[in-house]
Amino acid sequence: MIIKIKKNTEEEQVYKLSYALKKKEIEHKVVSLKDRTSIVTSSCFKDEGKFLEQFKSIIESCVDLKSDYQLSTRKYQSENTIIDLGNGAVFGSDKTVMIAGPCAIESEDQIMRAAEYLVANHGIKVFRAGAFKPRTSPYTFQGLETEGLELLDKVRREFGVKIATEIKDETHLDEVSDCADIVQIGTKSMYIFNMLQSCGKIKKPVILKRGFMATIKEFLQAADFIMSNGNPDVILCERGIRTFETQTRFSLDICSTALLREVSHLPIILDPSHAMGKTAQVPLIAQASAAMEVDGIMIEAHPEPAQAKCDKDQALSLEEYTKMVKKLESVCKAVGRTLE
Amino acid sequence: MIIKIKKNTEEEQVYKLSYALKKKEIEHKVVSLKDRTSIVTSSCFKDEGKFLEQFKSIIESCVDLKSDYQLSTRKYQSENTIIDLGNGAVFGSDKTVMIAGPCAIESEDQIMRAAEYLVANHGIKVFRAGAFKPRTSPYTFQGLETEGLELLDKVRREFGVKIATEIKDETHLDEVSDCADIVQIGTKSMYIFNMLQSCGKIKKPVILKRGFMATIKEFLQAADFIMSNGNPDVILCERGIRTFETQTRFSLDICSTALLREVSHLPIILDPSHAMGKTAQVPLIAQASAAMEVDGIMIEAHPEPAQAKCDKDQALSLEEYTKMVKKLESVCKAVGRTLE
Amino acid sequence: MIIKIKKNTEEEQVYKLSYALKKKEIEHKVVSLKDRTSIVTSSCFKDEGKFLEQFKSIIESCVDLKSDYQLSTRKYQSENTIIDLGNGAVFGSDKTVMIAGPCAIESEDQIMRAAEYLVANHGIKVFRAGAFKPRTSPYTFQGLETEGLELLDKVRREFGVKIATEIKDETHLDEVSDCADIVQIGTKSMYIFNMLQSCGKIKKPVILKRGFMATIKEFLQAADFIMSNGNPDVILCERGIRTFETQTRFSLDICSTALLREVSHLPIILDPSHAMGKTAQVPLIAQASAAMEVDGIMIEAHPEPAQAKCDKDQALSLEEYTKMVKKLESVCKAVGRTLE
Amino acid sequence: MIIKIKKNTEEEQVYKLSYALKKKEIEHKVVSLKDRTSIVTSSCFKDEGKFLEQFKSIIESCVDLKSDYQLSTRKYQSENTIIDLGNGAVFGSDKTVMIAGPCAIESEDQIMRAAEYLVANHGIKVFRAGAFKPRTSPYTFQGLETEGLELLDKVRREFGVKIATEIKDETHLDEVSDCADIVQIGTKSMYIFNMLQSCGKIKKPVILKRGFMATIKEFLQAADFIMSNGNPDVILCERGIRTFETQTRFSLDICSTALLREVSHLPIILDPSHAMGKTAQVPLIAQASAAMEVDGIMIEAHPEPAQAKCDKDQALSLEEYTKMVKKLESVCKAVGRTLE
Repeated sequence: MIIKIKKNTEEEQVYKLSYALKKKEIEHKVVSLKDRTSIVTSSCFKDEGKFLEQFKSIIESCVDLKSDYQLSTRKYQSENTIIDLGNGAVFGSDKTVMIAGPCAIESEDQIMRAAEYLVANHGIKVFRAGAFKPRTSPYTFQGLETEGLELLDKVRREFGVKIATEIKDETHLDEVSDCADIVQIGTKSMYIFNMLQSCGKIKKPVILKRGFMATIKEFLQAADFIMSNGNPDVILCERGIRTFETQTRFSLDICSTALLREVSHLPIILDPSHAMGKTAQVPLIAQASAAMEVDGIMIEAHPEPAQAKCDKDQALSLEEYTKMVKKLESVCKAVGRTLE
Repeated sequence: MIIKIKKNTEEEQVYKLSYALKKKEIEHKVVSLKDRTSIVTSSCFKDEGKFLEQFKSIIESCVDLKSDYQLSTRKYQSENTIIDLGNGAVFGSDKTVMIAGPCAIESEDQIMRAAEYLVANHGIKVFRAGAFKPRTSPYTFQGLETEGLELLDKVRREFGVKIATEIKDETHLDEVSDCADIVQIGTKSMYIFNMLQSCGKIKKPVILKRGFMATIKEFLQAADFIMSNGNPDVILCERGIRTFETQTRFSLDICSTALLREVSHLPIILDPSHAMGKTAQVPLIAQASAAMEVDGIMIEAHPEPAQAKCDKDQALSLEEYTKMVKKLESVCKAVGRTLE
Repeated sequence: MIIKIKKNTEEEQVYKLSYALKKKEIEHKVVSLKDRTSIVTSSCFKDEGKFLEQFKSIIESCVDLKSDYQLSTRKYQSENTIIDLGNGAVFGSDKTVMIAGPCAIESEDQIMRAAEYLVANHGIKVFRAGAFKPRTSPYTFQGLETEGLELLDKVRREFGVKIATEIKDETHLDEVSDCADIVQIGTKSMYIFNMLQSCGKIKKPVILKRGFMATIKEFLQAADFIMSNGNPDVILCERGIRTFETQTRFSLDICSTALLREVSHLPIILDPSHAMGKTAQVPLIAQASAAMEVDGIMIEAHPEPAQAKCDKDQALSLEEYTKMVKKLESVCKAVGRTLE
Repeated sequence: MIIKIKKNTEEEQVYKLSYALKKKEIEHKVVSLKDRTSIVTSSCFKDEGKFLEQFKSIIESCVDLKSDYQLSTRKYQSENTIIDLGNGAVFGSDKTVMIAGPCAIESEDQIMRAAEYLVANHGIKVFRAGAFKPRTSPYTFQGLETEGLELLDKVRREFGVKIATEIKDETHLDEVSDCADIVQIGTKSMYIFNMLQSCGKIKKPVILKRGFMATIKEFLQAADFIMSNGNPDVILCERGIRTFETQTRFSLDICSTALLREVSHLPIILDPSHAMGKTAQVPLIAQASAAMEVDGIMIEAHPEPAQAKCDKDQALSLEEYTKMVKKLESVCKAVGRTLE
């Protein structure tokens, strides 16, 4: 249940309600989001109405959700959450924002070439590349780490783009959130709950990738972990789920995406590269993504895919990227949106 | 391995090669497809080259496929298979053919209303509805059966559309294939191998729906079952796979679809209705389908969805259908195709 | 809902109730099972109580099940269904019956050697082998068919064992059910609803293998298809489900098996061979199966596994079978059962 | 590839080989495990033989593994890894060690009652309970944290048992590894690679739970992450995978377990409680686990399951535990093992 507190209520009054809940052994959390304070309980309880009656002077309304995801739903907030990066990249409106760049930062030359091309030819507004790479094998490249973040900073300064980059775990959250304009939580990190909570305390938008084994429910619960700690700016990212079919890397779950648009007020972006895992088919999946009317599309593009240290089978060359974008623009237009 | 026999080779000569293989205990099948005879073996064998050398006068070429799907691949035939129904509905070209109608035939009124609307307003070329319904519960409606087929015949005569309808099993194959312009094999029937073989002997195109837990390999093997019995006109239909996520009915596996376009020369259509299972999201999934540049889209539309005896949660009303089609036309155009 | 009719009610009275339901448009089925007639409806309906009140003279009791599987549940019949083959093989009691033999009948020599060994050394009571093989590739061995059934008949006569063999589809149901003591429905056939219905009309027990993509609900619905046509003797067989893990052939779903024992009164057997798909691990999975207190274990054993035409990677040699059985006997004893 | 270095080789020599690999851009890791140093490369490379020839004086042998899991396989070490806790609990031998206790530490009373019962009645050697609980909902109980660890310490001192407890993420690794005799990595943490590396640096055995959607390959790669950082004492724990079936919580993947015993030298334990998720069926799954000849079985037992704050649907009462253990002892004996 979400108990929305009236604006301008004194903190002490909120505390009294929280304390009264605690005495009744009702697990709950006091949440401050934008200019709104709420108390979220994990379940309903007996004599709820009677209990709340005592506090009616400070309660604006109650939302009685049976589910465990609450703040991320349209029952908490019916209108779309809008995240505006200030440079034309707006999530939650009628724009579809391209987020492109290589999987990993490998060298200054690689990252600058990629950024230069994408900005000069496509006016890209959000550039992506990873400094901390969660890899399943301990014997492969794990990212340039701090050195990579410095290169990202250079990209931002030289090309005026916004930077989206990934955290792997909590040990380097400060470092990453200092550097990034958008902090990205990878698919394998969606269940690191302390890190989600910490991401709730930063002042940057967060791209939350769906765990490839996570249900819609768990995905939104993860968003609630972030939001309930004070950060309202969560962007959901569908990047493919694991199924019985292994000829494709994952399967982009567009049916869940369609449902999420109904259920949640948060912006949603799609990641065709990781879902498909094969370069040749990425543009077709990107077209389908654009037709889904989502808020953004994330694409891996690399100056020399054959030399990529990470995920080279799915990276587009910069020329392939250009070819793909033309069609994406047409598809966006066909469904009443603008590709940004 | 596929051994393509030279055109105009006498049947006796083919028989001799087949017999020689049999003596070597090589399992194989003599296949006549269009004007081409081939011998397909299930595997390679020792001293293959030497053995085939003796028959070189009748062999045009050999395709050495490691996989168990052969005739359905581009290695057997590089160019697209084109299936032209004669009324403007062409699969395998630059058209995307709408196949629409209710899930099941329920009454004359229902079926005539649906057909009339779809033809008058959308010039639909292929109408779909089931007379034999494979249902998982023994206590629910199983279809009007023969009476349903007669109603479909009436639809064809009155509205001049082509009819796609489903067989449930082999017991009524003759009846259905007499009535249908396209015979449809449902997702739960993809593994009924005798029926696949029988569908290889009819002279009508076949829509083969992917089993909802069938791999790409098994899907193409099922197509090979049909083709190797003489019917080249197989249309592959992706209709969603079963995953761990149960809030959507199935998950439309567009990544597999993208891969199939590369691997197979057969036309491919998508079925958003069954994949999604929820009316409100069907149009969005249909948009994504159109953007995938597929050969057709199959949609359940019903004059009164709330009264439907079958799959009512996923059927569009006729008005919703109209609204959806407008956007599909734009999306098709955006990717260089025509919605038919 | 199951409406149990009082014993000795005249058929005409049952018909009247059925007709009254039909007029109310309630889908239902009149089921005669053992000495009991019931009417099963697919759902509850308004004013149910009032309606049934009129027929109370012929109604013994009503079971109000929300689910679509009804006859197979303990709510219809609380005590175990017992299937006694008459030669010591009893399903549904405290015995665990071994069902062993090769996957496919390949030759007289092969089948007689297997049967002789298993009877002489292990007093096996149910012998299994397939004459009609559903194979996913059209270019491989599809079974000896009628010739195979004749060989099975010879096995029965010479060794006095009961025969379990598979039907692939309805075209040869008569042939198979004449020959078999137990008719087996394979995993890929679980959704062939007409065939399930036909199996409801034969007088032989049926082993129903769970579709490798079937939920527990669909599995029991398939059993209901058989039972609601008059055959109470259904044996459920868990043989592994398809998951994301492909290093094993399937995954034996013992958690579902455990749940089925609570939910259903039907006997349950396990098939470690198909689940595991690798000979070396079959005995360990068979041990786990025995510890599950199931009614039977199905094992593929072949005189010369390396030469098997079908599933050779999972067949035990006869010597391996012997070694395995010793441990299975101990495990059965440890959990209070007898291996038969 | 694993390059095993001869014992007593000087560190400088190893460094030279590592440096030569680096110059060739071969990604690799120097690993010291027990008294053995190895260099593990992520892949093979051209002219490998020639290159290594130069270093033959310090190379004992090379293991050429194609896979990305290396140290955890029997190709690196053929004999079982044995982990002896010193109080009779030995993993990797012919003992099956019970690891029991409540899911979460809730209060002193709860934890002491559970421990007292299990020690007094069953002489349990390893007690388990969680202080840091990874929960998917932000609004529910997340564990007693530090206070919980102190209670575990009290349990150890009063009852002389060994303690297995879970880390949620790296922030409290030191705290947990100080308190625990075995550190447990939960299913949702299997992909937190930095944490795995950190667990490679502690001197305590680690229970690594398989991610519920992790392949066997990823599971063993995770073990390699720990081992390649210097900790050889990893215990693999199968706890159920996520499938399309949702009536059971997860599905205990005993087929993968059987395969792991062949592939890996590490001890393996099973967790029936989490896999099944329903108390009534846990004992049956535990029996199957015992019959699998695994090194341990992990069970959730609670003095008052109905009051449990976490996973109450799957916890056994202490009396149910007692009843279950009797049968487990018999099953272990039947397969030649001792329940500890």
